[in-house]
Amino acid sequence: MGLFTRDIKTMNDLFVHQLQDIYYAEQQLVKALPKMADKATEKQLKQDFMLHLDETKIHAQRLEQVFKSLGLAVKAVDCPAIDGIIEEADEVTGEVADPAVLDAALINAAQAAEHYEIVRYGSLIAWARQLGRSEIAALLQKTLEEEKVTDRKLTTLAEGKVNLRAAS
Amino acid sequence: MGLFTRDIKTMNDLFVHQLQDIYYAEQQLVKALPKMADKATEKQLKQDFMLHLDETKIHAQRLEQVFKSLGLAVKAVDCPAIDGIIEEADEVTGEVADPAVLDAALINAAQAAEHYEIVRYGSLIAWARQLGRSEIAALLQKTLEEEKVTDRKLTTLAEGKVNLRAAS
Repeated sequence: MGLFTRDIKTMNDLFVHQLQDIYYAEQQLVKALPKMADKATEKQLKQDFMLHLDETKIHAQRLEQVFKSLGLAVKAVDCPAIDGIIEEADEVTGEVADPAVLDAALINAAQAAEHYEIVRYGSLIAWARQLGRSEIAALLQKTLEEEKVTDRKLTTLAEGKVNLRAAS
Repeated sequence: MGLFTRDIKTMNDLFVHQLQDIYYAEQQLVKALPKMADKATEKQLKQDFMLHLDETKIHAQRLEQVFKSLGLAVKAVDCPAIDGIIEEADEVTGEVADPAVLDAALINAAQAAEHYEIVRYGSLIAWARQLGRSEIAALLQKTLEEEKVTDRKLTTLAEGKVNLRAAS
């Protein structure tokens, strides 16, 4: 995208731009999740992060599939939002001394990333439908459902176990 | 927080840190929302942004109330996540040439901020309950509900009107 031009002229342009944005975000999360799993002390949390790493790789592949079905080169654009979310996760978790409190902070950080993706995929799906590309909408819907399941799983783990240990 | 020390030792410390983080985020959104309302072309969207600006000011006041009830000075800490979300909103909306597509991009940007807040307030409420501060949890719950209402309102406006205009 040019610095002094307005390159997004149609909804299709906006769709492609946000596709490149979320592709970058998925790539950054593929790098971040193993580090988060390393930091986690609760066994279930480590497992959830590693399982979600596998899913995240599949999410990136689905995006590559979308680029190809649109006849476009696979491309990522910088996404300051996910960079900020990951930077903040590093900062906060780097400050935590207690292992149980660290797990609570890690869950909170991961959920910020999940919700960022939930918003982006939600809009991409709505836009794909509007653009008459229901097959793309259906593919991205699978990813959205997996992000929502991960988010709910993290809430359950936090409220059922981690927060209790962290507060004790 | 110190750069080379681990200052978050308890769940209470984590709670206070994230309170300072979301207080910063609310302050940044008080600055960002009028600019987003200015850019919006759809009348309903302008109104929604301005209404949410009023709510956002109240959310900041509620946080000040929480600091006071904890006997703490009101304080904000840098929040790279909301900075990234707002930076990305500026970048993307600055690229859009078509007014209807710009409205779609603005809604998407606003929902990223809403969901960031939904995650942070969700955890703060769970932690407050765990720490035995149900009156703080109840106060923050009011804010969480308003963030969710705003998010749903934006989805309805996008899917009912804005996306249709943007794709035509």
